[in-house]
Amino acid sequence: MADKWFTSITDVGPNKIRLSGYPIGELMGRKSFAEVVWLTLRGELPSEAEGKLLDAVLVSSVDHGVTPPSTLAARTAASTGAPVNAALASGVLAVNRFHGGAVEGCMAALAEAVAHMKEKDVSREEAAAATIGRYGEGGRRVEGFGHRLHDDDPRAARLFALAEELGLAAEGIPMARAFETALRNLAGKGLPLNVDGAIGACLFDLGFEPHTANAFFILARMPGWLAHVVEEQTRERPMRRIEPSAWAYDGPGERHLT
Amino acid sequence: MADKWFTSITDVGPNKIRLSGYPIGELMGRKSFAEVVWLTLRGELPSEAEGKLLDAVLVSSVDHGVTPPSTLAARTAASTGAPVNAALASGVLAVNRFHGGAVEGCMAALAEAVAHMKEKDVSREEAAAATIGRYGEGGRRVEGFGHRLHDDDPRAARLFALAEELGLAAEGIPMARAFETALRNLAGKGLPLNVDGAIGACLFDLGFEPHTANAFFILARMPGWLAHVVEEQTRERPMRRIEPSAWAYDGPGERHLT
Amino acid sequence: MADKWFTSITDVGPNKIRLSGYPIGELMGRKSFAEVVWLTLRGELPSEAEGKLLDAVLVSSVDHGVTPPSTLAARTAASTGAPVNAALASGVLAVNRFHGGAVEGCMAALAEAVAHMKEKDVSREEAAAATIGRYGEGGRRVEGFGHRLHDDDPRAARLFALAEELGLAAEGIPMARAFETALRNLAGKGLPLNVDGAIGACLFDLGFEPHTANAFFILARMPGWLAHVVEEQTRERPMRRIEPSAWAYDGPGERHLT
Amino acid sequence: MADKWFTSITDVGPNKIRLSGYPIGELMGRKSFAEVVWLTLRGELPSEAEGKLLDAVLVSSVDHGVTPPSTLAARTAASTGAPVNAALASGVLAVNRFHGGAVEGCMAALAEAVAHMKEKDVSREEAAAATIGRYGEGGRRVEGFGHRLHDDDPRAARLFALAEELGLAAEGIPMARAFETALRNLAGKGLPLNVDGAIGACLFDLGFEPHTANAFFILARMPGWLAHVVEEQTRERPMRRIEPSAWAYDGPGERHLT
Repeated sequence: MADKWFTSITDVGPNKIRLSGYPIGELMGRKSFAEVVWLTLRGELPSEAEGKLLDAVLVSSVDHGVTPPSTLAARTAASTGAPVNAALASGVLAVNRFHGGAVEGCMAALAEAVAHMKEKDVSREEAAAATIGRYGEGGRRVEGFGHRLHDDDPRAARLFALAEELGLAAEGIPMARAFETALRNLAGKGLPLNVDGAIGACLFDLGFEPHTANAFFILARMPGWLAHVVEEQTRERPMRRIEPSAWAYDGPGERHLT
Repeated sequence: MADKWFTSITDVGPNKIRLSGYPIGELMGRKSFAEVVWLTLRGELPSEAEGKLLDAVLVSSVDHGVTPPSTLAARTAASTGAPVNAALASGVLAVNRFHGGAVEGCMAALAEAVAHMKEKDVSREEAAAATIGRYGEGGRRVEGFGHRLHDDDPRAARLFALAEELGLAAEGIPMARAFETALRNLAGKGLPLNVDGAIGACLFDLGFEPHTANAFFILARMPGWLAHVVEEQTRERPMRRIEPSAWAYDGPGERHLT
Repeated sequence: MADKWFTSITDVGPNKIRLSGYPIGELMGRKSFAEVVWLTLRGELPSEAEGKLLDAVLVSSVDHGVTPPSTLAARTAASTGAPVNAALASGVLAVNRFHGGAVEGCMAALAEAVAHMKEKDVSREEAAAATIGRYGEGGRRVEGFGHRLHDDDPRAARLFALAEELGLAAEGIPMARAFETALRNLAGKGLPLNVDGAIGACLFDLGFEPHTANAFFILARMPGWLAHVVEEQTRERPMRRIEPSAWAYDGPGERHLT
Repeated sequence: MADKWFTSITDVGPNKIRLSGYPIGELMGRKSFAEVVWLTLRGELPSEAEGKLLDAVLVSSVDHGVTPPSTLAARTAASTGAPVNAALASGVLAVNRFHGGAVEGCMAALAEAVAHMKEKDVSREEAAAATIGRYGEGGRRVEGFGHRLHDDDPRAARLFALAEELGLAAEGIPMARAFETALRNLAGKGLPLNVDGAIGACLFDLGFEPHTANAFFILARMPGWLAHVVEEQTRERPMRRIEPSAWAYDGPGERHLT
């Protein structure tokens, strides 16, 4: 008989599914998907505020049009006749160091800078500048700043405003701001926080591990990839050449929540 | 110059990201992830009730312990040292006809039975029985009924109760019940609705296409796969033999929302 | 104790690896990779001629430059910083019905036409025309004919010449020629055999199952994807837009085996 | 108009496919798949001896029965009804640091030890011992030695014998032997070269880059995964529990090339 191995995530038996002890039927309709994502990964339910911020993090990354390589990868697979799950997997496999990966990188840099601030008993600004310096010496750069399209990313601003409003900004968010200032001082011009950096700072303040950061991006982008896969399969002919720059938007015009 | 091609999902430009026309910053913090998933796939926001039911559908599938093959596939990849996204992709690739695929199959059968009921002007029960008969003649069976573990799946009951409560049960849910009755009459014993069937009926009544059904399961199960990947990487040694029956649960005991 | 399950492919024990009974060390250096591929899939070694034709089938599909969607998919993943295996998996996932899938489709049509010829005792030409007719009635077309670039595919001609030379052309190759003639008669213009059709006819005459056909394409194209992944990672900057039409070849000029 | 980008692998045009300048039809039937793999990755054809050794490397890794996690991953996906390419992709995604990854690790250690030997002008044995020491200080170990099943791997012995016979053993193979000796001296017991180490040493002496090493394993194992996927789909029922230890071999008994 093989040795037993253990799991602490979900208890499953006949007519029984308990997530970290909670019967699943009790969570359904009373806790949001974002709150249950938190429960699944952390073993405890979040506070209402924490659940709301995580929800906003997921919403922030749901889609970015046809430009990201992961979306082009999912469309390319769809264009060859791939089943939906294979096209989604192609999207997942294109989330790496240079695309989506900056969340993890930013969280690691925030952790290093916060630790430096506490150990050396220096100001936040000094800790940010010292960390950037150390990265530069190692030929690396702090990730989560700068974007090829946005210099004032609407998602980053909104995430930080929400975190403040919900009383959840702890060490990560101010340190991300300190990085931004230090980078501006260093370069003479702005290298503004991007959405990866903003999500990194929020996840840091929510207590998540850098190791799982990219998975939040993947989870959040899944509906976007799906929408693009369906659009590719219904609007385009198979095996077309997908020109990454030759697109235009023809959906609903600007509108607002009432 | 290549011909332009078009997308109607998201409008992206410098400092502008609009999902079906809505500025993304406006959705963040005001609309739930489930509501924005709906927007991304349908182009319009759902009603509050529709958003709640879709949210419960996602929660219903978030995890099912270590037993599903997709979870074992994700753990197997993780056990070889795969990066998180590759382990998640392995989970995605194991969602197919026999695992997760019954949602799509059930939706197709519901569509056929509802069309039969309307065209032939017969009762729901007759339409269900006729559809099951046609499937049987073709050597197929209506999917979404029966489970190797649960004979009274807590997720199925809860989904239908919620749909009723929210006033969203339309043609799909009663037809799924009619299938259940017809299958019992046919077999002499129960072949109760499983969670795939319940989700299929809910998505049908919410107006989604069968083609996208498996993707909801994939989206919903992503946090579960992630939790198992992290558990595999932190609790187990690499390259162990993952015995699919030799597990035990050692997480929190039963507890309830207060 | 779990019930035993069985495998007949490879016997493995301490210091023992026997492929269908042959010690692996004995095969290494004496049998070619193509011959051992055959052994692995069929359980017996091929004749020398069969091994040579399968080898040529693999060589025929090793690369097709940067134009195929599977190659663009692998490059797209590589461009985001994917590890080599994830980029290769992205290539594998883009081999589907519209790309590479015609091998399987062609083999199925050949099987149908050959069966028709024997059952109805008609000529090869009549059987080919009847099969094309039946496909057309079902709204389908016989796959493996026509190419967006080549109208006289050098790989198709060479494969058939080799099969003749090696004495291996049986029912599949002449039937593929009969399809070509029937399609020309039907359309008034040529819809020449493409490489998928030629491989399908060869695999048919070698006795392989249609079900495994796409896998030969995947196996054969793997080195091509790898070369493109390495080229992308060494010659290009990350996250570039990969324009599918804007490429040029700058490798060695035409040369010949001596 | 987008800027042109360049590829030096394959020149493709109407009725023209030239691999590094060679018309593909000329290679088919005259050069083996292993030789064309080399051409695709290196831009030049190998010598006959080099082609033979690479061929043996591919044969050495074609299958290892049902025990490797990549094979279990491919079978798990197949068991859920995955199409063949998705099952193969699941195998590809399970080749990582702890499975197949030792080839790359071993090549890196060989490169380091050979460089040390030349720079410091010390004996091979001293260079091997120094490299192992440096790895140990960094909490790492030299990969490619030791196997959970084989202590005298038949593939390793055969590969080195072939390399010697073909006159291709250069710096890598003797250094791998020096590592083996140094490890025995260090541990008091043997930690013999495994097949990953042997392939690493061969690829090193053939002049391949460590970066592409895992891809050779993936390429070579593809037929094995395919055979297991077909066996799973034809011999087993869907969604079975795949017990990794409860298997037995029931194929042909031991036999030999004549």
